[in-house]
Amino acid sequence: MIKLNETHDPALVSWVPSANQANCEFPIQNLPFASFTVTGSDELYRGGVAIGNQIVDLNALSRTGLLDGAAQAACEAASQSTLNDFMRMGREASAALRLQLSRLLRKGTYAEPVVAECLVPQETAQYQTPCQIGDYTDFYTSVFHATNVGKQFRPDNPLLPNYKWIPIGYHGRSSSIDVSGQTFHRPYGQLKAPDSDTPCLGPSQRLDLELEMGIFIGAENTFGKAISIDSAEQHVFGLCLFNDWSARDIQAWEYQPLGPFLAKNFASTVSPWVITMEALAPFRTSFERSQDDPQPLPYLSSESNNQHGGVDINIDVLILTEKMRQEGLPPQRISSSNFKHSYWTVAQMVAHHTVNGCNLRAGDLFGSGTQSGPNPEEAGSLLELTAGGKQPLKLDNGESRTFLEDGDTIILRGNCQREGAVSIGFGEVSGTVLPAHPAQ
Amino acid sequence: MIKLNETHDPALVSWVPSANQANCEFPIQNLPFASFTVTGSDELYRGGVAIGNQIVDLNALSRTGLLDGAAQAACEAASQSTLNDFMRMGREASAALRLQLSRLLRKGTYAEPVVAECLVPQETAQYQTPCQIGDYTDFYTSVFHATNVGKQFRPDNPLLPNYKWIPIGYHGRSSSIDVSGQTFHRPYGQLKAPDSDTPCLGPSQRLDLELEMGIFIGAENTFGKAISIDSAEQHVFGLCLFNDWSARDIQAWEYQPLGPFLAKNFASTVSPWVITMEALAPFRTSFERSQDDPQPLPYLSSESNNQHGGVDINIDVLILTEKMRQEGLPPQRISSSNFKHSYWTVAQMVAHHTVNGCNLRAGDLFGSGTQSGPNPEEAGSLLELTAGGKQPLKLDNGESRTFLEDGDTIILRGNCQREGAVSIGFGEVSGTVLPAHPAQ
Repeated sequence: MIKLNETHDPALVSWVPSANQANCEFPIQNLPFASFTVTGSDELYRGGVAIGNQIVDLNALSRTGLLDGAAQAACEAASQSTLNDFMRMGREASAALRLQLSRLLRKGTYAEPVVAECLVPQETAQYQTPCQIGDYTDFYTSVFHATNVGKQFRPDNPLLPNYKWIPIGYHGRSSSIDVSGQTFHRPYGQLKAPDSDTPCLGPSQRLDLELEMGIFIGAENTFGKAISIDSAEQHVFGLCLFNDWSARDIQAWEYQPLGPFLAKNFASTVSPWVITMEALAPFRTSFERSQDDPQPLPYLSSESNNQHGGVDINIDVLILTEKMRQEGLPPQRISSSNFKHSYWTVAQMVAHHTVNGCNLRAGDLFGSGTQSGPNPEEAGSLLELTAGGKQPLKLDNGESRTFLEDGDTIILRGNCQREGAVSIGFGEVSGTVLPAHPAQ
Repeated sequence: MIKLNETHDPALVSWVPSANQANCEFPIQNLPFASFTVTGSDELYRGGVAIGNQIVDLNALSRTGLLDGAAQAACEAASQSTLNDFMRMGREASAALRLQLSRLLRKGTYAEPVVAECLVPQETAQYQTPCQIGDYTDFYTSVFHATNVGKQFRPDNPLLPNYKWIPIGYHGRSSSIDVSGQTFHRPYGQLKAPDSDTPCLGPSQRLDLELEMGIFIGAENTFGKAISIDSAEQHVFGLCLFNDWSARDIQAWEYQPLGPFLAKNFASTVSPWVITMEALAPFRTSFERSQDDPQPLPYLSSESNNQHGGVDINIDVLILTEKMRQEGLPPQRISSSNFKHSYWTVAQMVAHHTVNGCNLRAGDLFGSGTQSGPNPEEAGSLLELTAGGKQPLKLDNGESRTFLEDGDTIILRGNCQREGAVSIGFGEVSGTVLPAHPAQ
């Protein structure tokens, strides 16, 4: 059961004025976590919680004596230079800290003067990945994305037979994952033109974005021990935005028979703020399979997963080209999708990943796979938005794009809205393509 | 150029008597590294170097004052609870430590009484993985394995068109990698019989081993910066034995289109001892492509790689079944191969992995992929040795095997031999299959 509690009360107001403004992404009902420091300082990275345009410095807060019990223990763990130990403590620990934080940030609390001393303006902060990411697994949970991509190879039979039985996933690379603001040089790779007998080495000409949700693991399972579908979300710390950059031309030549490799591992970008599963509780959606689709095997099925396995998260993709930057234009939205369209839920991903006994560790990251929606304009990649590069996307300033060009910045933004709940946001994740290095 | 130096001198003799015995795997010319502690003690894990049947405790050695300069710094780094920091220091650091260790362990040295105080008998030691493995990448470098497996799917055209151009690789999972002695329960997974319309969840019935070499990364490259073929080996700390257990039935149903996932990530086992590239110098082999094969692209080709890119390492696979254990029989060898047959070299794997700017970190592990040799009895998996389960393997005690049964222990052993050089060994990696958990 998804339980709402006092932290979700839409009537809550914070003594931090910016948290109460319309369209604020980080109202008191959100309280996401990040790992931050102050730009230009020599302070260590530590955990922080967003409130309005401020950050509660958890290291500072842990020394005020305002917290007690599990919340104090959680806050001390979250004061470290990565959130791994905090995440490993599990949902009860983060919920305890979240509850006491909610109380300390409410208008009228006696604690305001002391907590106010713990605030750091977000505009002075810089972030790192919230934790040391151990293993990164990328799923493929959008049936619309799988169908769109499959159509380019198999027009009559786009979905493979296993798709509606297995939450398809594969392992990715964690070393090249960085936080929002990541820049990377256009990757070199082996490219093989359809009309050529031999490949050549060159910079990718079909560089793409992938709109994904990132899912951070918290509590660990023991090696050899599967996680049941109904306890799966107890192992999930929270969600972030995730851009899994992809080089389609490198991918096309390399991926048989063992899957994508260099086409994906040159860079991936996460948003700094991790939205906890607690904060997402008001935005859960039902998830029953249609009669036309196979019912999931028992280890992937439960009443609870049917009732509220999904999460209603709007995600936008925006582009800011070099020319737009020079012209002083704002980023332009090129797609808009929603995580509720995912064919497989977060709980199903966790249950499937561990059914063979595979052990998940705190700080492991899942990518949801590209979250394309049912309509063409909801596609989560340029590969889909431009029909494989055949239909260029027109931008408002007269430019057009098939794939990404040097200097392009891609921004993902996410938010949750529901009647009767206070809207919350994910902040954003941005990343920029730099020109390829000179010939290697 | 592969340079031999005084540490490779076949005339060297150690004051540790067991190091000088015939067939000793760890003579003074080897000096491999592991992370160990004393069984039953509360001592921390630390680095050690094998000599005969003893271990030089590097934490103890670092406090003797016997080392100086780069060797002392390397020894201090190797005294930590994982070897990551030591590996990150690069080949010069490990070479400096290796040289001074070689001198301290030679017969007649003044240092014998002090170094003798640093020895721990191997029979009292227990090991962990040598380092914290960040990312694990599995390659597919045996053309014989790729052909054998491909034949089962495409009899007329077993090798895919990219095979002889790209050192094919894919990302694997590091969390479930453990050191020799690993046991694991037979994994559950989705299985789909060819004559069934729907999959079911059950324990794998086609559980297999994979004979591989493990390759540990040392010095790191900067994010975005490719490693050239000629500097590639400067980023390699050393090699170990590696068994990448695989569930063929899970793999067959899940692997399209993104590659193996749960079929591989339930367990993988490394040997405790890492043989440095320095120790392997006398066993390098030439590596030119035949005229029939495409010449590698320039970023994968160099004079040095042609001349001595390969490594001549014999690897045996042995099985010890539950019945053999009860009968008091020794393990039986079921296959024997050699890493020199690999179609791609270690340097080519490193150069390819980073050509897109992907950053490697100290402690990252590459698997070589299953190292099958040119002859059928040199296959590195049961899938090949039994023709996909169709031709059971007869064991000397009357048992037979298609795939692994509960209680089976698989052992890999490796060694290098060459006229004029002292033979060195890799020790062994063993792992045991436990029965599946009761129905989940």
